[in-house]
Amino acid sequence: MGQASADSSTAVIRQIYNEALTEQYTYQWLKRLTAMGPRFAGSEQATESVLWLKELCDSLGFETALQKVKVPHWVRGPEQAAFYRLKGSKKELRFTALGGSVPTNGWLEAPVVEVPNFEALDSLDLEGKIAFFNIPMDPTFINTGFAYGQAVKQRWVGAVEASRRGAVGVVIRSLSSSINDYPHTGSMTYQDAPKKIPAGAISTLGAEQLSRVLAENPDLKLSFRINSEWRDSSYSYNLIADLRQNNRNEFILISGHIDSWELGTGAHDDGAGSMHALASAFLLKKLAVPVESNLRVVFFMNEEFGLTGAKTYAQKVDSAGVKHIVAIESDGGGFSPRGLSTVAPTEIQEEIRSFRKFLEPYGIHRFSSRGSGADISQLKDPKVIRIGLRPDSHRYFEVHHSERDVIEEVNTRELEMGSATLAALIYLLDKNRVIWE
Amino acid sequence: MGQASADSSTAVIRQIYNEALTEQYTYQWLKRLTAMGPRFAGSEQATESVLWLKELCDSLGFETALQKVKVPHWVRGPEQAAFYRLKGSKKELRFTALGGSVPTNGWLEAPVVEVPNFEALDSLDLEGKIAFFNIPMDPTFINTGFAYGQAVKQRWVGAVEASRRGAVGVVIRSLSSSINDYPHTGSMTYQDAPKKIPAGAISTLGAEQLSRVLAENPDLKLSFRINSEWRDSSYSYNLIADLRQNNRNEFILISGHIDSWELGTGAHDDGAGSMHALASAFLLKKLAVPVESNLRVVFFMNEEFGLTGAKTYAQKVDSAGVKHIVAIESDGGGFSPRGLSTVAPTEIQEEIRSFRKFLEPYGIHRFSSRGSGADISQLKDPKVIRIGLRPDSHRYFEVHHSERDVIEEVNTRELEMGSATLAALIYLLDKNRVIWE
Repeated sequence: MGQASADSSTAVIRQIYNEALTEQYTYQWLKRLTAMGPRFAGSEQATESVLWLKELCDSLGFETALQKVKVPHWVRGPEQAAFYRLKGSKKELRFTALGGSVPTNGWLEAPVVEVPNFEALDSLDLEGKIAFFNIPMDPTFINTGFAYGQAVKQRWVGAVEASRRGAVGVVIRSLSSSINDYPHTGSMTYQDAPKKIPAGAISTLGAEQLSRVLAENPDLKLSFRINSEWRDSSYSYNLIADLRQNNRNEFILISGHIDSWELGTGAHDDGAGSMHALASAFLLKKLAVPVESNLRVVFFMNEEFGLTGAKTYAQKVDSAGVKHIVAIESDGGGFSPRGLSTVAPTEIQEEIRSFRKFLEPYGIHRFSSRGSGADISQLKDPKVIRIGLRPDSHRYFEVHHSERDVIEEVNTRELEMGSATLAALIYLLDKNRVIWE
Repeated sequence: MGQASADSSTAVIRQIYNEALTEQYTYQWLKRLTAMGPRFAGSEQATESVLWLKELCDSLGFETALQKVKVPHWVRGPEQAAFYRLKGSKKELRFTALGGSVPTNGWLEAPVVEVPNFEALDSLDLEGKIAFFNIPMDPTFINTGFAYGQAVKQRWVGAVEASRRGAVGVVIRSLSSSINDYPHTGSMTYQDAPKKIPAGAISTLGAEQLSRVLAENPDLKLSFRINSEWRDSSYSYNLIADLRQNNRNEFILISGHIDSWELGTGAHDDGAGSMHALASAFLLKKLAVPVESNLRVVFFMNEEFGLTGAKTYAQKVDSAGVKHIVAIESDGGGFSPRGLSTVAPTEIQEEIRSFRKFLEPYGIHRFSSRGSGADISQLKDPKVIRIGLRPDSHRYFEVHHSERDVIEEVNTRELEMGSATLAALIYLLDKNRVIWE
């Protein structure tokens, strides 16, 4: 890039951030989206949100299309609760069912055994017991996503491992990066478990408390109740919103997932990412930034409960011969952006790293290659360059999948910085498109 | 630095961050500090906080000393309020007195004139009016500190400028980086104003509302009441807490200010910075990191209301022949650290910039030279290298000087990252001490 070209890029990018920080489109849209309530895949609200979003995108000048997606329909049900009795008094624990858990059918009561790590499983007698997985997120990771990646196993396969050893139920320590009293839900599997046993999560504070009490009262019994229900699978939609610059069947894809868990309203996960994707494309249109590539914003349905939206999209675009020049995903929350993580050949990574000089003044300083995003990872063409936005992660797992994932936890400026960063990234990718093609 | 030395630095720094994130000393101390209430200079609570802090430092193995500091004693008083009447109905505005304002003695009622910028002042008729300074913080600065620096003039000299033009009172738009309903206080001056007129702040939301209403009702009257009181100056203390490694009269100084405004409890401003300073020195001691320099933590009294603590300290160390190798200050809140700003000759700046390779994995990527900190700027020896910690600033001016500056707005991990960063910085400075001496 020559000096004149670099100077003009610097000016365009400054203009993008100015517009985002001044007009705050992202926050306004996110506020309206979250005001509609949670967007749990399978729920009517999730589909209503997509339809509202379609109207919004139409009004902003996108060409939109809905894409039918099969979605599971699991309902948490009312009155989930947990408690134990100590010296005659009842101690309640804040509790939530894990997504997909079978119900308890009344109260499930059983002695509880703490599982401090997976290695300990074989030495524990879980027959007829409730397995209490109490594996904290490692606080020493600077990127809390890696700590989550390590600890999430207890949530995902805890019920399978416990069931194999004769347990009648599972309670896990919430995957939160701090000690607080909010239970966090999330997906789980039964895979080839001999029996589907009910599974829930208590807060990190509750887990610390239960662990202390258990140490002194090894015969302690825990009771919990889950009134969940599996209903027939139904259908919802991915929303595709295009800004075409040419007639070629190829796109820069920018995405988030529109579904959320239902304890909060998915403000960070992934309302923020969905609105980032929309705002980034809209900012370029609004400012009439010259872009040669077609832009495609995709709001994926059902990331949380099996990625069926992303899988459907991947299948459909393959048969339609759609080419993705680059695929971008924002699913790390609406916090102050820090970097980009790219899955691509080394020489492409180096090119993207060269964007640092334009993006570092806005706080984008980490260029890594550790994954991109769950939805865009479903695209089948291995040559698609995949990029994930990486916001500061210190706060993310305090709100993630809990009732705290609401608009009040979102800072307007931090959110807008994410949209501007993606818009600047798209602009730079497009300007260098000869490299990717 | 050779490779072996670099590897050992990398390991030491990793250990520092691990300890901070795991043990969370900073957050525990900050929680106890803020539980004591606001620490407004001149109040008993401010002095009680210093005495508590002395005990804490003693118990942690520091050599401590109190240093007497003259402090002003301004009291906000009860029942500050503002309203206007529109079509017969009374509209209240959330309101706070500015620090140092004279009282209104009952309600002050007068027509209100909006001042959109300082250039407009000479064309406005303020005689007998309330001047309403409505100058927003520029949202396009990425570092909100610069936006604050521009907009703070209306708070600092608004009353002087308005009084010169015959105004009877001043109301300013709160210096907040978002639109919300929290009024923010802060210091002001009367300098050579012909008359001391009462001055307060309304929220940004209130300012937007008042501006809209005024545009349609130019004769609108505003009423406000301030029951403040100036009492006799009194005395409080700086706290000095040393960790000596040798008998030389020279130190690496690490500091924050212990006083705060009284609407909140100064969790970010500057409880966070004070606890950063303490924790950084304590982490090095706790981990027995080899350090050759004497470390001195200073908690300055009364930064907010005239910097009398820092001025007293600067005077006393001069006459005692104390040398400061480096002076460090944390007064930008307890948010995720982003960088360091250094005031020093270019070659020293370059040396500090070379620490980037050790600190960037922890998110420290901005090495600038735009100021250090208000307290350490009072040190008279121009050769003292001064460094300010620069946390992410997007959230800071939403809480700053308002009732939202409380522990609930502090994220534990973000706070601890600041302490570890200062500890790593001290370690690197000490290791390279031959350069600074």
